[in-house]
Amino acid sequence: MLVGKVIDSIVSTRKNERLVGNKFLIVEPLPCMGENRDRLVAIDNVGAGIGEIVLVAVGSAARAGCGHPDAPIDAAIVGIVDNGERL
Amino acid sequence: MLVGKVIDSIVSTRKNERLVGNKFLIVEPLPCMGENRDRLVAIDNVGAGIGEIVLVAVGSAARAGCGHPDAPIDAAIVGIVDNGERL
Amino acid sequence: MLVGKVIDSIVSTRKNERLVGNKFLIVEPLPCMGENRDRLVAIDNVGAGIGEIVLVAVGSAARAGCGHPDAPIDAAIVGIVDNGERL
Amino acid sequence: MLVGKVIDSIVSTRKNERLVGNKFLIVEPLPCMGENRDRLVAIDNVGAGIGEIVLVAVGSAARAGCGHPDAPIDAAIVGIVDNGERL
Amino acid sequence: MLVGKVIDSIVSTRKNERLVGNKFLIVEPLPCMGENRDRLVAIDNVGAGIGEIVLVAVGSAARAGCGHPDAPIDAAIVGIVDNGERL
Repeated sequence: MLVGKVIDSIVSTRKNERLVGNKFLIVEPLPCMGENRDRLVAIDNVGAGIGEIVLVAVGSAARAGCGHPDAPIDAAIVGIVDNGERL
Repeated sequence: MLVGKVIDSIVSTRKNERLVGNKFLIVEPLPCMGENRDRLVAIDNVGAGIGEIVLVAVGSAARAGCGHPDAPIDAAIVGIVDNGERL
Repeated sequence: MLVGKVIDSIVSTRKNERLVGNKFLIVEPLPCMGENRDRLVAIDNVGAGIGEIVLVAVGSAARAGCGHPDAPIDAAIVGIVDNGERL
Repeated sequence: MLVGKVIDSIVSTRKNERLVGNKFLIVEPLPCMGENRDRLVAIDNVGAGIGEIVLVAVGSAARAGCGHPDAPIDAAIVGIVDNGERL
Repeated sequence: MLVGKVIDSIVSTRKNERLVGNKFLIVEPLPCMGENRDRLVAIDNVGAGIGEIVLVAVGSAARAGCGHPDAPIDAAIVGIVDNGERL
């Protein structure tokens, strides 16, 4: 999993129907975790908000682990990091 | 998911038969999302056109989520971003 | 999917038995698609030859989509790009 | 698999329920293995501690191989490297 | 698949039980294949030895294709390249 900060959200009115009902958040990987990852869009599985430090699962884990086995989802916020600001 | 701009399309007459009927679009990841991703070819799942800002799912999500579980597809455009030009 | 040029082939006499019968081609991603991808070895699913511009599917798509669900294949050439030289 | 050093742990009180009971460790890939990987968060499958050199499996292997097929896990520590300090 | 040279092996006494019986080899991707890949640890599926040039499958292909569907394996050596020294 990667650790990042929620910096924004995006809206998509015209989308695959299996994505309906999901919130799309833009996550910026924390610089302290390295420089090789780009920002990504993840669905929100835990009620995360802008500014929070979160744990993001990518790949098939995002579907299998969040109750969306048949949706075109490749990234999901699966935890809010406690005391994330210390990282 | 990544966010990118549809910049071109490609045609492939000789291809795996399970790909027949799909439109192949070249997507350029938005620079504001980072510099580590290359352009990629994604099938179009939502009727996207050249110049639109789109949401792309990669990996098995592209097959499982778009009704092509047995096709050799590893990227699919699954949403058009509203007000994409603000990004 | 990525777009690349077939530049060479490799032969492997001693290999996993589920790979027997496949042709292994070295594909160089086109520079116009970005600079972050390395050359890779893909099995040939469409009768591609050296010098052709091809579409390559990576990950589980290469197995699931090419009739090799149980083979250790992570990349497959799944289309020949028409007018590939324009890219 | 990648080889890295466990450098820290993180706690997430608010998380996907299928993650409950797992320990989240931050792993720093060893520099001798290359410079293209970032630090990542992996669940601990073998009782690893801070400072140990470990083997990490990523992707669906982390779920399938650690008894968590339905959890949003994309990285797991699956071995402690003997004499890891020699690497 | 990637092409690399086997440069070392590692031993892990304390590991996930589904990994028992596998040999772990460190593979260095060949420089002629690009500069974006790091060294990785792969299980040996074909009897490879130090110094040999091998074909490595990564991701779920390594499990599905090598008879270890339920093991935490994300990379496997699946072929020895003939005349690998010419690459």
